[in-house]
Amino acid sequence: MKDRIYNFAAGPSMLADEVLDELHEEFYNYHGSGMAVMEMSHRSKGYLEIFEDAKSRLRRIMEIPEDYEIFFMHGGATGQFAAVPMNLLKKKADYIITGNFSKKAEKEAEKYGEIHIAYDGKDNDYSKIPSQKELDLSTDADYIHLCSNNTIYGTQWKAFPDTNGIPLVADMSSDILSRKFNVSDFSLIYAGAQKNIGIAGIAVVIVRKDMIGEPDHKTPQILAYDLTQKNDSMLNTPPTYPIYVLGKVLKWIEEIGGILEIEKRNIRKAAMLYDYLDAQSFYQPHAEQDSRSLMNVTFTTPDKDLDTEFALRAAECGLCNLKGHRLVGGIRASIYNAMPIEGVEKLIALMDDFATEKKR
Amino acid sequence: MKDRIYNFAAGPSMLADEVLDELHEEFYNYHGSGMAVMEMSHRSKGYLEIFEDAKSRLRRIMEIPEDYEIFFMHGGATGQFAAVPMNLLKKKADYIITGNFSKKAEKEAEKYGEIHIAYDGKDNDYSKIPSQKELDLSTDADYIHLCSNNTIYGTQWKAFPDTNGIPLVADMSSDILSRKFNVSDFSLIYAGAQKNIGIAGIAVVIVRKDMIGEPDHKTPQILAYDLTQKNDSMLNTPPTYPIYVLGKVLKWIEEIGGILEIEKRNIRKAAMLYDYLDAQSFYQPHAEQDSRSLMNVTFTTPDKDLDTEFALRAAECGLCNLKGHRLVGGIRASIYNAMPIEGVEKLIALMDDFATEKKR
Repeated sequence: MKDRIYNFAAGPSMLADEVLDELHEEFYNYHGSGMAVMEMSHRSKGYLEIFEDAKSRLRRIMEIPEDYEIFFMHGGATGQFAAVPMNLLKKKADYIITGNFSKKAEKEAEKYGEIHIAYDGKDNDYSKIPSQKELDLSTDADYIHLCSNNTIYGTQWKAFPDTNGIPLVADMSSDILSRKFNVSDFSLIYAGAQKNIGIAGIAVVIVRKDMIGEPDHKTPQILAYDLTQKNDSMLNTPPTYPIYVLGKVLKWIEEIGGILEIEKRNIRKAAMLYDYLDAQSFYQPHAEQDSRSLMNVTFTTPDKDLDTEFALRAAECGLCNLKGHRLVGGIRASIYNAMPIEGVEKLIALMDDFATEKKR
Repeated sequence: MKDRIYNFAAGPSMLADEVLDELHEEFYNYHGSGMAVMEMSHRSKGYLEIFEDAKSRLRRIMEIPEDYEIFFMHGGATGQFAAVPMNLLKKKADYIITGNFSKKAEKEAEKYGEIHIAYDGKDNDYSKIPSQKELDLSTDADYIHLCSNNTIYGTQWKAFPDTNGIPLVADMSSDILSRKFNVSDFSLIYAGAQKNIGIAGIAVVIVRKDMIGEPDHKTPQILAYDLTQKNDSMLNTPPTYPIYVLGKVLKWIEEIGGILEIEKRNIRKAAMLYDYLDAQSFYQPHAEQDSRSLMNVTFTTPDKDLDTEFALRAAECGLCNLKGHRLVGGIRASIYNAMPIEGVEKLIALMDDFATEKKR
């Protein structure tokens, strides 16, 4: 009934078939309510159950301690680029720049206070994650910001820096729920949902309660953590349907075995691709070996025309959106939670055929 | 296959069956793309067609002149409560308060500059729209803000005030596309989509190009009109699925005959209810006669317990969400575009039965 392709897009990206099946099945008449979820008042009993279910599943799967709040907010991760400094920045913040999105977060934060750039990987073309000793961390920052996975460059933090007690804030948009995180290592985690945990139009924020104080006077209400807490993410009508989809993704993760099973699958999928890349010479991987992302595998063919030809050929074979980001070019295979092993197998087979053909 | 109820919720609210049918039919595999719309990259050709289609339909239906931009933004109308002053307020703005949402807009604007309250209907319990001579308008305001329809109190502007050349800004969240507006009477129109034109998680903004200038220095990027214009509403990943639903609602409006047909239907539905209310004495309408909303019909029974009993009885009969807003109580029937005539007929029949029973 579906004729589905393998969608390697960096985000918005594919959802598991099981998730789409449930959304489709419940579409018209949610649990006998006589209405579609997207028609339900956010204050109705039926919708509040959906909302609470999503929150409690997230808390369970990520083992979020009770002293952390969970917010569902408008504006995606880019909204949080402003919300984080508007709510947390009193004097100075450190930003670690390992790619495009951490750079964007830093630029946005400059509007709201003094920013110290603790590291910028531009000299190595963002091909690696810095070691602890490469970081120039302040001792008096309000927080230290990093991006746990760099979608565009295909790098990912494996262990997080020692911040010497300074609150750590992480943008996890492209690897939240892809692997086990120790939530209490972070004071605040945020993520746009459209890569690994749902669809566009919602940001998930996980914040330790003692971080929530009075925001900058000019903070729009929709970005104020204190008001979001007070109103349980319903200061205004929340993005009701994206929250429902998030709940379904979380249900799917629990049903297949939780975060450890997801992590195992993601390690396996990524290993298949990196093992293949390391065993040949036609494709050149972008990221340094110990910084490689489990989520976004980036590489190039010997020239730009071949990159383009490869992406087109792949699309003809039902492997879509493999073109690299416009900033860096090349090829990018985003293999988020919902990408099945078979998609990766087919991609490797195609890569091998293409390389053989072009090396003749 | 549907067992649908009549959903009189004030928002999120019901969608036309034709809209739900198309969403359901295209759910898995949009136009042979092999993916669901919610999985599509916002920068893919397929999605950009959806995006442009929604924009051009809106321009056509509302006859939006070429010197106006159309934005699809995160954060709902509440996001615009901040965005409007952050982008337009240089020195002073006038706010006309005719209900709860215009009051909220005014409170939010106070963060960003001097606000002059040109009218506040609290003394008449927001039961009417002020006449021109009741307004204390400034001659030097950057803009004048009003809310075209008051969801909670059930009042609606019929003719808009003469602003003496000062830009008029309207929150049309609860009556956009319900009737013919002359867009060029306004410098900026905004609306959350979840009442009349779609689902929660998106604000539509229609703004005359010459109004777009440099925003307040602290404006978050997601709320900056200049950046939204420069990036054609794709500064970050837009709420892709809500935009798609908006496009389907717009298509449905065009297919049934456009704005004049919708307006005709809405006038008819509201007249049925108000004519009934005026011909009996059990129910008491809230809004003054010449301020009555076509969208939200508010009234009370002789006492609060009966209000509650009525709403419960109605729900048992498949007429849902008739309880008034928690701020004002009573009964509220929201009869947006998607509410069919039959829903109103059934409601009137029930009201009459209930009144007869209780008057015994």
